[in-house]
Amino acid sequence: MFINGEKDKLFLGIDGGGSKCKAIVMNANNDILGYGISGPGNPAYGFEQATTSITEAATLALINAGLETTALNELNAGVGLAGLNLPTLYAKMQAWRHPFKEIFLAHDLLIACFGAHHSINGAVIVSGTGSCGFSCIDGQEKLIGGHGFPQGDQGSGAWFGLQAIKQVLLSLDGISVPSLMDNVLLKKLSCTDATSIIDIIADKNATFYAQLANLVFDAAEQGDIVALAIVKEGAEYINSMARILLTNKPSRIAMLGGLTSRLKSWLDNDIQTQLSEPLSSPEVGAVFYARNKIAEQSKWQSSL
Amino acid sequence: MFINGEKDKLFLGIDGGGSKCKAIVMNANNDILGYGISGPGNPAYGFEQATTSITEAATLALINAGLETTALNELNAGVGLAGLNLPTLYAKMQAWRHPFKEIFLAHDLLIACFGAHHSINGAVIVSGTGSCGFSCIDGQEKLIGGHGFPQGDQGSGAWFGLQAIKQVLLSLDGISVPSLMDNVLLKKLSCTDATSIIDIIADKNATFYAQLANLVFDAAEQGDIVALAIVKEGAEYINSMARILLTNKPSRIAMLGGLTSRLKSWLDNDIQTQLSEPLSSPEVGAVFYARNKIAEQSKWQSSL
Repeated sequence: MFINGEKDKLFLGIDGGGSKCKAIVMNANNDILGYGISGPGNPAYGFEQATTSITEAATLALINAGLETTALNELNAGVGLAGLNLPTLYAKMQAWRHPFKEIFLAHDLLIACFGAHHSINGAVIVSGTGSCGFSCIDGQEKLIGGHGFPQGDQGSGAWFGLQAIKQVLLSLDGISVPSLMDNVLLKKLSCTDATSIIDIIADKNATFYAQLANLVFDAAEQGDIVALAIVKEGAEYINSMARILLTNKPSRIAMLGGLTSRLKSWLDNDIQTQLSEPLSSPEVGAVFYARNKIAEQSKWQSSL
Repeated sequence: MFINGEKDKLFLGIDGGGSKCKAIVMNANNDILGYGISGPGNPAYGFEQATTSITEAATLALINAGLETTALNELNAGVGLAGLNLPTLYAKMQAWRHPFKEIFLAHDLLIACFGAHHSINGAVIVSGTGSCGFSCIDGQEKLIGGHGFPQGDQGSGAWFGLQAIKQVLLSLDGISVPSLMDNVLLKKLSCTDATSIIDIIADKNATFYAQLANLVFDAAEQGDIVALAIVKEGAEYINSMARILLTNKPSRIAMLGGLTSRLKSWLDNDIQTQLSEPLSSPEVGAVFYARNKIAEQSKWQSSL
């Protein structure tokens, strides 16, 4: 069932996170025509960077679909971005002179939820560069975490990476016990001591730290007690988030984000068994979000 | 005893930290002629900011001494700066076209040690905006911590402030138990919820977080268990640093920095009893450092 004129419409779905921005172009039949991927799309790390990434990912998706890049202005865009729950960032993005036909902005969790459950109802736990929990049940949204780096985002890639750096620095000072992570991190950063580590990480953002998360899991899986303590602390935070979301009895709950495959098996068993596989990606969810908004507009117009 | 021509010399001592830059002007008799204070002097937070702060503090000290500000180019400057143990920052500061007669750069811990003990030998623990430990014994320097924010500097003002933010965010999400800090922090930041806190702290640096440290101690002293856990963790780090420095048997060890008065009583008793009062400030130590360097140059020249 197509709403008036929707049949020939082209839709863009954007999922912009701290590390990358993903785009898909879909037709009104929900066929995915093309994919695109570019740099960081979280406006918290810079408005210019985010808007450039969104336009680039969209352009790449059009090219991938075999369409003219001039078709940017025909796209009905659903744009889900990390950080958009912050009023100042939302206002900045609202003022963007975007190249699309129309734009529907949402925070990344809403589009993730739409994608994971093919419904506006459900819950998601995300652990990628950042971390957060979200549920939407009968129009009631609940957000947990997503407080950003370094003050929040426990159990995220950036958080794991920062814990690794912290522990290695403590170990090099002789304040904590040595860890398997010490040499792995020094080698990965081409460093020889604490001073060179600090020199390298100066002004680095969450995306950089997230790239170090895997070495914590590698060491933990080898039984390293320092890494095990970090993984358990991160998993415990995700457990707590899940338990709070589950009190509202969502029809489904899914775990998403780049760290899912490493982190999921460390969660408490009762949490693991309640997790459903996400049905579609957040960028598909962004298209569903845009179509939902267009349908609402159409309903509102036809009621006049 | 004056080295040739030193009698009429004017000396400048600079202690540049993350929150402020302090200057004194002294004569060759070690009389303090004037004081000056300005903004952040840690080049890790910006070269322009640091050099502007140093020049401003020096100018204010000259004015306070009743001297012409044109006397800047007569000053023999000892300049101790946080962050100068990092090679890139040291190189940047070395290349500075400074307004003084000559400049002797040192990291902040060396001048703190000189000031505290009136000797190049001794140990210091610093907890101000950042934290670190340092000893210099028979020419052997040992540095612990000082790894910067947020990856290190445990037990510092910035670290305490960040822990407060973290805990309040966890509490507002219902993940950790409520704390006395929750309402105090919300009120201090004029916030009503987590979102407004994150909005306010976006892009804030260590100096901002350090201003929140006191509320952790206030709550701990009222028996708040969340605040107590933070204070104990911070104190434990400082204890560890002190124990490592004490293994080298320094003749004296002193605790310095803006957080000393709040943190000292939380340290282990055996550490507290070994702490000596600092004899002079780090900025006086910076003058001693410059004079020491000038004496070395003079010795070297007279040996030719």
